[in-house]
Amino acid sequence: MNEFSTVADDDAVAIARILANDHVADVVEALNRESRETASELLSEVPFERAVDIFDQPELDGAPELIEALPRAKAGKLLAAMSVDRAADILREMEEPARSELISGLAPPLRATLLAILGYPEGSAASLMTTEFVSVPSDWTVGRTLDYIRKVERTRETVYAIYITDPETHVLLRSTGLRRLITGEPDDLITTVAPDRTPVTVSPLADSEKVAQLISKYDLLAVPVVEGGKILGIVTVDDIIDTMIEETTEDVHRFGGMEALDEPYMKMSFLAMIQKRGGWLCALFISEMLTANAMQAYEAELERAIVLTLFIPLIMSSGGNSGSQATSLVIRALALREIGLGDWWRVALRELPTGLVLGSMLGVVGICRIALWQYMGFYDYGPHWPLVAATVGTALVGIVTFGSLSGSMLPFALKRIGFDPASASAPFVATLVDVTGLVIYFSVALVILRGTLL
Amino acid sequence: MNEFSTVADDDAVAIARILANDHVADVVEALNRESRETASELLSEVPFERAVDIFDQPELDGAPELIEALPRAKAGKLLAAMSVDRAADILREMEEPARSELISGLAPPLRATLLAILGYPEGSAASLMTTEFVSVPSDWTVGRTLDYIRKVERTRETVYAIYITDPETHVLLRSTGLRRLITGEPDDLITTVAPDRTPVTVSPLADSEKVAQLISKYDLLAVPVVEGGKILGIVTVDDIIDTMIEETTEDVHRFGGMEALDEPYMKMSFLAMIQKRGGWLCALFISEMLTANAMQAYEAELERAIVLTLFIPLIMSSGGNSGSQATSLVIRALALREIGLGDWWRVALRELPTGLVLGSMLGVVGICRIALWQYMGFYDYGPHWPLVAATVGTALVGIVTFGSLSGSMLPFALKRIGFDPASASAPFVATLVDVTGLVIYFSVALVILRGTLL
Repeated sequence: MNEFSTVADDDAVAIARILANDHVADVVEALNRESRETASELLSEVPFERAVDIFDQPELDGAPELIEALPRAKAGKLLAAMSVDRAADILREMEEPARSELISGLAPPLRATLLAILGYPEGSAASLMTTEFVSVPSDWTVGRTLDYIRKVERTRETVYAIYITDPETHVLLRSTGLRRLITGEPDDLITTVAPDRTPVTVSPLADSEKVAQLISKYDLLAVPVVEGGKILGIVTVDDIIDTMIEETTEDVHRFGGMEALDEPYMKMSFLAMIQKRGGWLCALFISEMLTANAMQAYEAELERAIVLTLFIPLIMSSGGNSGSQATSLVIRALALREIGLGDWWRVALRELPTGLVLGSMLGVVGICRIALWQYMGFYDYGPHWPLVAATVGTALVGIVTFGSLSGSMLPFALKRIGFDPASASAPFVATLVDVTGLVIYFSVALVILRGTLL
Repeated sequence: MNEFSTVADDDAVAIARILANDHVADVVEALNRESRETASELLSEVPFERAVDIFDQPELDGAPELIEALPRAKAGKLLAAMSVDRAADILREMEEPARSELISGLAPPLRATLLAILGYPEGSAASLMTTEFVSVPSDWTVGRTLDYIRKVERTRETVYAIYITDPETHVLLRSTGLRRLITGEPDDLITTVAPDRTPVTVSPLADSEKVAQLISKYDLLAVPVVEGGKILGIVTVDDIIDTMIEETTEDVHRFGGMEALDEPYMKMSFLAMIQKRGGWLCALFISEMLTANAMQAYEAELERAIVLTLFIPLIMSSGGNSGSQATSLVIRALALREIGLGDWWRVALRELPTGLVLGSMLGVVGICRIALWQYMGFYDYGPHWPLVAATVGTALVGIVTFGSLSGSMLPFALKRIGFDPASASAPFVATLVDVTGLVIYFSVALVILRGTLL
């Protein structure tokens, strides 16, 4: 937070020039580099229209705090002037009582719309939608629609689609694009320039992944959010791209075994960083303590055959690695809806032979390594070294198979109990596999080495 | 491949109905569920225009093989009728000699365009672009431009943007949208309805992540690919969404420690799956063998203090987990361009104290665990148990710090030598940290336990 002092006079001049002339996205980038205090100061000097444009960018860091810092009257005007989906986003992240105060100061129709959007859970289609879309009754002509877009909707930069509704029931019937509209005859009915097909829609509670998939699959610029046949709003392609980027970040962080950061790495405070990472790290550490218990249980065997300990890290990591592979495959296949919850047994039937083959490969490599070291005289594994090698090889088959199976089933299990399957992190899988890996290893050893080393 | 036999008469009827009436995206989904042979058979019965639409969908599995299976003349006609970027995609994935045969059969202008696009590396902006875009000279009027779009460009479903070029040099000057165009007076110059701002462009070799970022940042529907000021083509928002989904899949697979699959999990052949996973698994296994060497080097210590072995899995996994956290953070921050290659020391300066604090947290938990077990009589760590606890605690601080540091530096190192930083997988980091972790653990033990246990 000490960037404040770095805003020398030169910087101020440079920033003032950027604020006035640059593309609004570049202005946001410049503001994000400043401290909250400086950004707030700079924003108070910007003309109102420009400020609306700036706050309309979801990339602006700390927008709720910046709005909160403004006089309530000005903040209310800004919220009313920006796009509804963005205003809802900002209010959603704002603390009480500022949020309620601001909402109650808005004009009743806008207030009602915002409260409706805020009522939907975060990440749902309805929470991402904007209520600003072009919709006309099916008895309008092409000419009347064009006139309407020219005059009434002139503030809109992009017309993603034109939605055609039943004049009586307001139920969505068709959708068309500006491109088709301009080729129509002005006196024709609007329905003559719309494809004869029910538009693709989503329900208000559909998750953002579902919306992204529909947009990608049907190459749309926007998807209408529909309830009881009526359009509540639309989710546009640019909001979906922002959401996809955000969700990928969350997934990568979670797969790395931590809580997802909600701020850029370099902007995150030290304490927040420790919280996001420390919680999971401790949880994994405490679960992993079970390995110490497992080892203690086999201490007698360890003392008799110290040679077994040499391969513990190697064997455990192989289980974790094969599990992490299987988990990443299944997480992604579930996210892309290539497979559903009911396909778990199909996946298990693939992972079982895959694990057996992969485990056998590693087993052969492991046995060769031990034999090579023994023959070359690099190390002496004792008179029973072929049995030790057999133990390592057999254990690897069992552990890699178990790793592949449990790694692939974990995302299903998480999804089944209502968690995001992407919470199945690589460290989580490794921890799950480690304890069982030790038990498998020592059990195999007890069978193979009984009467010789054990 | 034995789905072929499952296409009973009922299915055939259902599929024929889908082929004729459904949205093309649903047709593609239905075809993807069939075997290549069945899909090929079904496609041969579809009217030409519909087949073009179907092949235009990037979601169609195995399009290169399906095109290759067609008579060359029909395949050529299809390629000529589909969008240029899609045709280039299909040709790119096709085997020789089919590819060269097909290309040489195309009309010379299309052939030249396709060869130009195919000359760019996969994943570059130019390889994703379509050459079908609307561009008009700056001395045209609004009316003339509208007429042009109505008549000449009538096959285009969406006009993402209208690019305005210099009438002499054809250099890109401005861009505008259909929305602005229809509000202009027909006799005004086209430049009067374009914002007075240089359009955002990319160079042909820019990577797809860069394009996605520009589209997201500036809320564009398309980005022109420009060389020497002239437009070569445009990358549209729907191609970028498809690319983003594909890249996220690749990143998740690689972060899981395997080669990225290029087909859906359930469609992948067993052998291909083993190849994609086995290679990395073996590489990691062979690197991890160094842990066995490290253990062998400390065998004398292990024999004297068997109690040390009990904590090896616990300590090693903590290093891997903290490394995996740091790697996932840095991979994502690099991908989002929050940090650049030159910021490595800034990241190191954050990870060093973070690792120390996280390591101390785990160290305290570890010491408490040992003390608790000792006091409660669950296990006897021997007369020197406080020293054993101190060894575990101190080693954890060192290992977690080392894990955080090396996990965060690995993506930088990979990027520096020209690899994708996302190749730094969680298993890769764990393997890197494991050997060092053992060395740290035994070194700490030698210092703390010298004269007592060792």
